[in-house]
Amino acid sequence: MKEKVDIDGDRLWETIHDYAQIGATPKGGVKRMAYSDLDRIGRDKFIDDCIEMNMEISRDAIGNIFAVMRGERPDLPVVMVGSHLDTQPTGGKYDGALGVLSALEIARSVYAAGRRPIRSLEIVNFANEEGGRFAPAMMGSGVFAGKLDLEKMLDSTDADGMTVREEQGRDTTGAYPIRPERKIGHFFEIHIEQGPILEAEGLQIGAVTGAQAQRWYNGKITGMESHAGPTPMDHRRDAFMAAAEFSLAVEKAALDQAPDGRGTVGIMSLYPASRNVVPGTADFTIDTRHPSDAALLQMKNDMLKAADEIGKRRGVSIEIDEIWDYPMTPFDETLISRIEHFAAERGLPCRRIWSGAGHDAVYMAQIDTPTVMVFVQTKDGISHNEIESIKKEDAIAGCQVMCDAVVEQLFKG
Amino acid sequence: MKEKVDIDGDRLWETIHDYAQIGATPKGGVKRMAYSDLDRIGRDKFIDDCIEMNMEISRDAIGNIFAVMRGERPDLPVVMVGSHLDTQPTGGKYDGALGVLSALEIARSVYAAGRRPIRSLEIVNFANEEGGRFAPAMMGSGVFAGKLDLEKMLDSTDADGMTVREEQGRDTTGAYPIRPERKIGHFFEIHIEQGPILEAEGLQIGAVTGAQAQRWYNGKITGMESHAGPTPMDHRRDAFMAAAEFSLAVEKAALDQAPDGRGTVGIMSLYPASRNVVPGTADFTIDTRHPSDAALLQMKNDMLKAADEIGKRRGVSIEIDEIWDYPMTPFDETLISRIEHFAAERGLPCRRIWSGAGHDAVYMAQIDTPTVMVFVQTKDGISHNEIESIKKEDAIAGCQVMCDAVVEQLFKG
Repeated sequence: MKEKVDIDGDRLWETIHDYAQIGATPKGGVKRMAYSDLDRIGRDKFIDDCIEMNMEISRDAIGNIFAVMRGERPDLPVVMVGSHLDTQPTGGKYDGALGVLSALEIARSVYAAGRRPIRSLEIVNFANEEGGRFAPAMMGSGVFAGKLDLEKMLDSTDADGMTVREEQGRDTTGAYPIRPERKIGHFFEIHIEQGPILEAEGLQIGAVTGAQAQRWYNGKITGMESHAGPTPMDHRRDAFMAAAEFSLAVEKAALDQAPDGRGTVGIMSLYPASRNVVPGTADFTIDTRHPSDAALLQMKNDMLKAADEIGKRRGVSIEIDEIWDYPMTPFDETLISRIEHFAAERGLPCRRIWSGAGHDAVYMAQIDTPTVMVFVQTKDGISHNEIESIKKEDAIAGCQVMCDAVVEQLFKG
Repeated sequence: MKEKVDIDGDRLWETIHDYAQIGATPKGGVKRMAYSDLDRIGRDKFIDDCIEMNMEISRDAIGNIFAVMRGERPDLPVVMVGSHLDTQPTGGKYDGALGVLSALEIARSVYAAGRRPIRSLEIVNFANEEGGRFAPAMMGSGVFAGKLDLEKMLDSTDADGMTVREEQGRDTTGAYPIRPERKIGHFFEIHIEQGPILEAEGLQIGAVTGAQAQRWYNGKITGMESHAGPTPMDHRRDAFMAAAEFSLAVEKAALDQAPDGRGTVGIMSLYPASRNVVPGTADFTIDTRHPSDAALLQMKNDMLKAADEIGKRRGVSIEIDEIWDYPMTPFDETLISRIEHFAAERGLPCRRIWSGAGHDAVYMAQIDTPTVMVFVQTKDGISHNEIESIKKEDAIAGCQVMCDAVVEQLFKG
């Protein structure tokens, strides 16, 4: 079975930039925060664009939108493709939108080719992937996968005290029916890399092997606050110097698991935070990631050993509390190979790459949906920023390869 | 000439605790912030207590109060003794008050002995030593010494926008005359150590050799903010990890000048301060001190060298700006020896000790007044805290030794 559909790259790029007008910021970014009026305009445009191809629109209780191009065999599992249209408060044009609009481009290309697929093609726009307004992130896909509690998520509030439930009540998509249960055969998502690897290696796209395991911690070091002048160095129990040493131990734990280990201290709060007072306490966060659960556990053990040694030597107490643990989530090996296969067919060098960030696809993989992602080279690895940028040819390359893999599944009997 | 006056230790201790009732906090501390109503009540009580001995009250434009016990030879330089009655917002009972009330106790003891001194005894209560409400600290002594500009200080505002000038207008001491110029022969101040050295060595008191030199810096490290997940360790320009490494270099620079070097990073602010974002910038403060100007300069050079090396290796820019520089200020060698002499006479072991903190005495020494301080052992080295604590016998020992040294000067022709 050798069905091939060529996408319209110019149309894809134009569509992305049309959508980027909705919530466009003066600095060239996009602000389309989840469940906001601008998000609604984007969602409505997406629905209109799908309806043009006679796709069937439905939704679920958390606000995920589904657009179905019915196949000849609606009894077979659907092929689902999508991502999210919401953005960070000062987000870019491509994070999320690339995935939904590539799915739209694939549907348009299949539709334009005039041939009805065997399996149904279902585009999903997951609600509130960013979590920048209503926590947590990946809310729509998390509820969809049954990993987040619907009622709790509907009660999630933004900084103004508004709930998701209240915003949902104003959503025009409420007019569409709730999507009935169906079997999902495959899930595809294309996304910007948000990291520097593809650019460093001069590659346009990557076949994503899965999501790294993550462990997040809160750290608290308690020493003794004292006067910076009269207190000799050997009488100090300086919470910050201990925190500085421990932070470098976090970095070392990640480097010892090179090249895939990641260790970050993003927040450091000192008390009393006075220029001439030796800090008495230091509160901080630790974010660790690795594709291997075992390596991530080794990093944890290395950190705890360092904390113990530093605490004893410096006479401070170091508490490291794990607050979140996210297992390594591999994607589907067969689909990964198909992405590599179609990339090679299109003459596009492509490497396997782990996703360091969370994505809607990760929740889909966690409920045993055969899943794969395609990453597109991101300028300087920058995202969640108005200067976020990708190249047109790279977006087209990624969308075409994903289209080939999607179409292969669509026309399987 | 062998004049000796014994102080009344119980009276000293009672007086200190009487004053501690003014602005007493539930946790056993004192809140008597500069130029506040509670500060005024303390100042008025001090004036009343001095008037009881027929001392002459005068003031100056910044609110320093002078109480003079006229000697037989008012043409000779006065012997000045004092400190400050204002406190930190959550201060203790002894920081400052010990110095003013020991001076009061000495005056009372001389008065009770019924013998008029040859030189005039002048007690000073310096205004706003703490600087916790109106910056900078040591405002009263700084203006007195001509090191701070009077008009600028009067315009200094607190957090509510109130100026020193406005508060001065409400001060009852405004009724007293401005103190005429006079020659000051000696300045004595007794103060809690605010450090752990005397306690660690089991000593009640110390003879202070002078104030350490200080250099204060602002530091700024600029790297590249990036996503904590997709950004490999070797692609990062993590501003905080550079700051952690640099902070340990500050600590090392101080330790390399042991035992007197001091290095403190009291404030550390990261941007964007998000759990899963590699910090792009780190802003921090550095406080360095040493009794030797040369050693302090060596610490600076060590830090700058480390900054250069760390910045180049980690691909971040490190700016270290010196914002304040305070020279080493030695006290009067003759007076230091006399403190040691009288301590020995009273059977009190006493060591020489550098002051790590600023004190009113330092400004007095900087205008070439022969100056000395006595330090009193401080529990756990803790000050600027409601749990600040000293022992009664140590306060009495310190006051008695200073009294002996003061009386020696008072009865010199």
